[in-house]
Amino acid sequence: MQEFSGTITEFRAFDVRFPTSRSLDGSDAMNPDPDYSAAYVVLGTDRGDGLEGHGLTFTIGRGTEIVVAALNALEPYVVGTSIASFAEAPGELYKKLTWDSQLRWLGPEKGVIHLATAALVNALWDLYAKLEKKPLWQVLAELSPQQIVDMVDFRYLTDALSAEEARRALDRLVPTRAARTAEIVANGYPAYTTSVGWLGYSDEKISRLCRESLAQGFTRFKIKVGLDLPDDLRRATLVRELIGPNAALMLDANQRWDVAQAIEWVKALSVTRPLWIEEPTSPDDILGHARIARALEPLGIGVATGEHGANRVLFKQLLQARAIDFCQIDFCRLAGVNEVVAVLLLAAHYGVPVCPHAGGVGLCEYVQHASLFDYIAVSGSLERRSIEFVDHLHEHFLDPCVIENGNYRAPFAAGSSIQMKAESLRDHLYPSGAVWKSGGTA
Amino acid sequence: MQEFSGTITEFRAFDVRFPTSRSLDGSDAMNPDPDYSAAYVVLGTDRGDGLEGHGLTFTIGRGTEIVVAALNALEPYVVGTSIASFAEAPGELYKKLTWDSQLRWLGPEKGVIHLATAALVNALWDLYAKLEKKPLWQVLAELSPQQIVDMVDFRYLTDALSAEEARRALDRLVPTRAARTAEIVANGYPAYTTSVGWLGYSDEKISRLCRESLAQGFTRFKIKVGLDLPDDLRRATLVRELIGPNAALMLDANQRWDVAQAIEWVKALSVTRPLWIEEPTSPDDILGHARIARALEPLGIGVATGEHGANRVLFKQLLQARAIDFCQIDFCRLAGVNEVVAVLLLAAHYGVPVCPHAGGVGLCEYVQHASLFDYIAVSGSLERRSIEFVDHLHEHFLDPCVIENGNYRAPFAAGSSIQMKAESLRDHLYPSGAVWKSGGTA
Repeated sequence: MQEFSGTITEFRAFDVRFPTSRSLDGSDAMNPDPDYSAAYVVLGTDRGDGLEGHGLTFTIGRGTEIVVAALNALEPYVVGTSIASFAEAPGELYKKLTWDSQLRWLGPEKGVIHLATAALVNALWDLYAKLEKKPLWQVLAELSPQQIVDMVDFRYLTDALSAEEARRALDRLVPTRAARTAEIVANGYPAYTTSVGWLGYSDEKISRLCRESLAQGFTRFKIKVGLDLPDDLRRATLVRELIGPNAALMLDANQRWDVAQAIEWVKALSVTRPLWIEEPTSPDDILGHARIARALEPLGIGVATGEHGANRVLFKQLLQARAIDFCQIDFCRLAGVNEVVAVLLLAAHYGVPVCPHAGGVGLCEYVQHASLFDYIAVSGSLERRSIEFVDHLHEHFLDPCVIENGNYRAPFAAGSSIQMKAESLRDHLYPSGAVWKSGGTA
Repeated sequence: MQEFSGTITEFRAFDVRFPTSRSLDGSDAMNPDPDYSAAYVVLGTDRGDGLEGHGLTFTIGRGTEIVVAALNALEPYVVGTSIASFAEAPGELYKKLTWDSQLRWLGPEKGVIHLATAALVNALWDLYAKLEKKPLWQVLAELSPQQIVDMVDFRYLTDALSAEEARRALDRLVPTRAARTAEIVANGYPAYTTSVGWLGYSDEKISRLCRESLAQGFTRFKIKVGLDLPDDLRRATLVRELIGPNAALMLDANQRWDVAQAIEWVKALSVTRPLWIEEPTSPDDILGHARIARALEPLGIGVATGEHGANRVLFKQLLQARAIDFCQIDFCRLAGVNEVVAVLLLAAHYGVPVCPHAGGVGLCEYVQHASLFDYIAVSGSLERRSIEFVDHLHEHFLDPCVIENGNYRAPFAAGSSIQMKAESLRDHLYPSGAVWKSGGTA
């Protein structure tokens, strides 16, 4: 990586909330009333070029202020740090953040402190990519296998994958990186849409949204399930009829069930031929997901989870236990770019496709960088892979994601696509922003 | 439970820190410089009797303010709640706290938000026990099996243990509760000491502390390992020689190793005949602990973990996978009394002894209530069971735990033994308290 001059001298953390609970967008079996929000951090430098690193962690309303408090607790680790020291060893700064001997007690490596670490780590990468004047995915895809491996904390992973094994796997894909880059820039990365089937939508609305999505070129559709079986069966059947036999239908239960109930419920929905059941039970239940996966294997239904996957140790086990058929990383639940890369390496090692969690606010912007990098440098494959897409709140970003014919178009602005427009940030500050003063509900 | 009048009207959360990093007490392979701390909450009522519910979550310095922020986010769930509604259904209020649809995103059920929930749930139980004028263990031990089961959130547990199975197991012990109560009050509950072997202690200090502990009646001793194998072997051998062949020696690695390294390291220490290896690797690694347990089984060395066990779903799996031989619940890492009871039920179901994590500040005071309740009503056994004891900071509590002849004496003051002396609370407030103004290091 390049050695830019300058030191991080400014650190500002914000509580930003969007009053999405005023509509039913984003409602599912566990989250009836989310206000899509972000703990947002801005890093400034003494370089005088005005470039800033922006990072956020997606939250859903109340409690965002707790993540902001955690961000402020991490400030001493970055203010005063030279950009060169980050560029020289991004894995070292990341490990300092996750291994602070006192803050670690609050996780370790999970929950609020990990969410805050994600926003901060991602802000560092955003700053660095802006300095290189490249999109984040390209910065990552140009790293050497050794540099990629050095980003990762292999502690607790070595019974599944060593740094040396990971490096060798990355080595094998280096000669073909350029071809895949050209191809994915030309064609885009496959997306699936979750916009059609939130709980609470009428059948009419579902039908209209399905037709619109088909017209836009989508071939993969996800709906929410888990509150009421007859209702789920009716809606899943409706969507299957609308999208036809060859399109992919995914079901998302948002952790609604116990293990036995999950198996029974999904079997009852199997007539609609879903590709996967997502979050059938507790995100922490590796053995439970494995049992569900074994029961659904004969039906050709895969198990997907990960948006609440706390850290790389959980993903390691989900993969070791063959508990998931689709690995759904989250760019802010994991501790940012470095830990996302760890899970990409693990998933590739086990041959499990990564289909990132997106939606909310900023997640679509973020995860396209992970999937592009995964395709070019880590897995080398698009098979059974797609990125979630939800058409929410993109208008607040300077470099919003772009969907063309059902694919994410590769972003080319410098950075990680996560910088919010100044006026959006200002108006949605909680509780002082204009949107909240005029009658928000959070 | 009794229906007391009154409503919770006051909620105060504090950041309390003790400058323990000024000495090396409490140092281990992962925590070189803890400042034992607490996010502390006080609940007041409109009853006019001056009774308060006190609760705390143990932390180790930096970041305590984040847990206080999380406590404040939970305030709306308790202020305005009637004591009668808690007493009527303590499981319902607990579930409201852990299932807030927006705050849940920050865990779910893990990390900062869960630590804060623990302090608050425990404060509610402290208040209730004070109203009954009984120690918490006695309040719990007088509940009916159905009331105990109703405290617990069985969601995600039913593939291992249903409410009905748990109730039947509790039923069987009801007739003999009184006999066990009389016995444990007369004799106390076995303790083990961790005071002898913190990293950084000289051999001379270890020898002196071992002799003192033996003289005090201790027969179980734990030392910290994991930084340097030759040093560990020397210290473990020294302690084994000092305590004799029949005393129990436990080793604690505080998450220092990867799986293969843990197996290799502990095999090298097996000549000192340890009873268990504690926290050999990541607290999240169920499959890793299972592999370590299988490897050490032939050597007669058990695996212990749990002080960083995020929630009941993790413990369920550790038990299902036979990954632990000793279950180390933490009274504040789990979401307080209700989730502690869930894990006690699971451990009894799998026949695994519970040996709670203690030390720090307040944990010894807390966990004695869990173990007494476990013996009287849940497991009915003392076999292979003991409570950790560390002689730190007890002087700050109104009702400090008491060790007699190597056993915890059953506490009899009303409540959960966790109320700090007013002057201790005042002097250790961070950063405004006298102790910190005069030159603390946190």
